[in-house]
Amino acid sequence: MYMHVKALESLLATTNGLPLNVRVILEGEEEVGGEGIASYVASKPADLQADFALISDTEMFAPGLPTLCVGLRGMIYTEIEVRSSRTDLHSGMYGGAAPNAFVALCQIIARLKDESGHILVPGVYDNVTPPSSEELDAWQSLPFDEEHYRENEVGSRALAGEEGYSVLERTWARPTLDVHGMPGGFIGAGAKTVIPAKATAKVSMRLVPDMTPAGTFELYKSYVQHIAPSDVEVDVRLIHFGDPCLIPVDNPYVQAATTALKEIWGKDTVFIRSGGSIPIVGDLNRHLNLPSVMMGFGLPDDNLHAPNEKFQISNFHQGIESIIRFLEVVGESTGI
Amino acid sequence: MYMHVKALESLLATTNGLPLNVRVILEGEEEVGGEGIASYVASKPADLQADFALISDTEMFAPGLPTLCVGLRGMIYTEIEVRSSRTDLHSGMYGGAAPNAFVALCQIIARLKDESGHILVPGVYDNVTPPSSEELDAWQSLPFDEEHYRENEVGSRALAGEEGYSVLERTWARPTLDVHGMPGGFIGAGAKTVIPAKATAKVSMRLVPDMTPAGTFELYKSYVQHIAPSDVEVDVRLIHFGDPCLIPVDNPYVQAATTALKEIWGKDTVFIRSGGSIPIVGDLNRHLNLPSVMMGFGLPDDNLHAPNEKFQISNFHQGIESIIRFLEVVGESTGI
Repeated sequence: MYMHVKALESLLATTNGLPLNVRVILEGEEEVGGEGIASYVASKPADLQADFALISDTEMFAPGLPTLCVGLRGMIYTEIEVRSSRTDLHSGMYGGAAPNAFVALCQIIARLKDESGHILVPGVYDNVTPPSSEELDAWQSLPFDEEHYRENEVGSRALAGEEGYSVLERTWARPTLDVHGMPGGFIGAGAKTVIPAKATAKVSMRLVPDMTPAGTFELYKSYVQHIAPSDVEVDVRLIHFGDPCLIPVDNPYVQAATTALKEIWGKDTVFIRSGGSIPIVGDLNRHLNLPSVMMGFGLPDDNLHAPNEKFQISNFHQGIESIIRFLEVVGESTGI
Repeated sequence: MYMHVKALESLLATTNGLPLNVRVILEGEEEVGGEGIASYVASKPADLQADFALISDTEMFAPGLPTLCVGLRGMIYTEIEVRSSRTDLHSGMYGGAAPNAFVALCQIIARLKDESGHILVPGVYDNVTPPSSEELDAWQSLPFDEEHYRENEVGSRALAGEEGYSVLERTWARPTLDVHGMPGGFIGAGAKTVIPAKATAKVSMRLVPDMTPAGTFELYKSYVQHIAPSDVEVDVRLIHFGDPCLIPVDNPYVQAATTALKEIWGKDTVFIRSGGSIPIVGDLNRHLNLPSVMMGFGLPDDNLHAPNEKFQISNFHQGIESIIRFLEVVGESTGI
C-alpha cells in the first residue's frame, strides 16, 4: 500500500494530476481474517464502484522477473475440539480406562490426509478444476529448481505432497490441509501425568477453483464427526474463510500491466498463481464484479510470516516505478 | 508423611518410647520424577538398612474399606519431537509441498495405540505377567460399579480400553499409553496460518510386572523411528521412568498391617493394586531389598492431580490411628 501512495504522490508532484480516477481502500486486518473489510465491501457496493482493483500482496516468481498473479487459493480455517472427560485425570489412576482427548484427536487428524498428501475427506476433490494445458505448459517453462527449493526455501529432508503433481501444481492448483497447533494439556518443560479432558487442533484447508468454503467446510465437518471415536465428544468450528479465485488474463488491465512491467523490468511478464489466500480479491469479484490486477514485488526468500521476514529495497523502488507506469498505460489505453 | 509424624509424636507423648526403631525418609519430588531420592537410595544403601518400609501414597478402594496396595505400575515418560523444516513456513506459500510436523506427529501417535486401546509397539506385551486367578477372583468381589465409575469419576461418554479385560485389570495389570500435551506451533486464540517447523508430544506408558523401563523404552523408540514419515526428522527422549512392582502378601509386615487395620476400621483388609507409579517402592526393593507396606487413606473421588483435589479429614484421623496401631503390632509380633 505504501508503494501505491508513493506512486500517486510522484505522479501528482510531477504531472500535476493523475492519468485516471483512483480510489484507495486500506485493509489492515488481512492476516487475522479480514472480516472488517469483507463486510464493508458487501454492505457498500455503491460507494466502491470501479473498473478494476490493483493489489500488491503477491510476489515475483524470481528476482528481476516481472510477475502477475492470476490465481489464489481460498481457505477454511477451523478448530476441532475433542472432549474426553469432565475434568483432567491422573494417568496412573485412569490410564487404560479413560479416553484420551489427544489420542482421539491424533486418530482423527491421521485420517484427514494420507502419507502422500491426499486429502481423505470424501467429495473434497469433486469441484477442483484443473489448470488448462496452456497454463501447465507455461508453469513448466518457469525457472524452478525443485532441489534448491527443498533445501533453501523449505529446508526439509524431502518434499511432501501428492504424487503425479509438480510442486507448482501442489501449491497453486491443488487443495491441501495443514495443522497449525494443538492447544490443551501439559506443554511445559518436564513431565506431568495428566489425561487432558480437552484437546484442540487448529486445522486449515487451502481451496482451489471451483471449491467453495461453505461446501468444503460441510464435507470436512461431517467427515470429522463421522470418523471421531465414539467415546469422545467432538466440535468442529469454522474460524474464517476465503474464496479461491482465478483472474482471466485477456482483460485490458492485465494487458496494461504487462506493457508497464516490460518497460520497467525489461522482460516479458510471467503469469503465476499463488498458494496463499487474499480474501478481498474474492470479495471484490463477488460483490462488485471487479477484476483484480495482482502486481506484487515480494521475493521467494522473503520468509513470509516467519522469522527474519524481509522486503528487498530495490524491489520497493522498481515497484513504485512499475505502479506509476501501469497507471499511465491504463489511463492512455482504456480512457477510464 | 504428616500422618506418620503425628503417629510417632503421639506414641512418644503417651508411651514415652516407640515399639520399634524408626527411620524417616522424606521425598518431596515424586510428582516431578523423584530423581533425587532415587540416586540417594542407590548411593547410600548402608545408611538406609531396614526391615521394611511404610509408605502412605495410595488410596482406599472405597470409603471405610481398609485397603493395602500390593502392586504398582511403573512408567516411562517420553517426548517425541518431530522437525519438518528449517523454519516456520506460510501454509499458503508452502502448503501441499512442505511436510507438516504436527500432521506427521499425529500419524505417529495414531499408530501407537489402536482404537480399542491395544498398544501397537511390537513386543510390548511379551513380559506382561497376568495376575493370578486368586487375585483376579478377589478383584471380582470388590465393590465396583462400572457405570458409576464412568459417569462420576471419569465423566466420559464411554470407557476406553482393551476388550476382554475388566476396568480394574485395565488400570492395574495392563500397560497403557497416554498423550499429555503437544507443544509447538500456534496455540493462541484465532487463526495463524503457520506450518510449524517443529512439534513435540509428551507421551507416557504405564508398565506392569515384569516389564522393564529400559527394555520398554527401547521397543517404543525403535518402533516410533520405524513408523515415522520419511520426510521429517524424529527424536525420542526418555524424560523419567520407574519400575513396576508387586509385593508378596505373605510377609509379617503386611500381616501386621491387616491386623491393625481390622482393629481400627472394623473390616477385613482388601488387597488392591494401583495403576499409578511410586518409583521409590521399586528403588527400595532393588537397592535395599525392602518390602513396602503401602497403607494409604486417599479416596477414589479425591480428584488426584486435578482441579478441586481433596483429602477427607476423618481419613486423616483414622489414618494416624491406623499407623500407631500398625507400629505397635509390628513391634509386638516381629520383635524388630
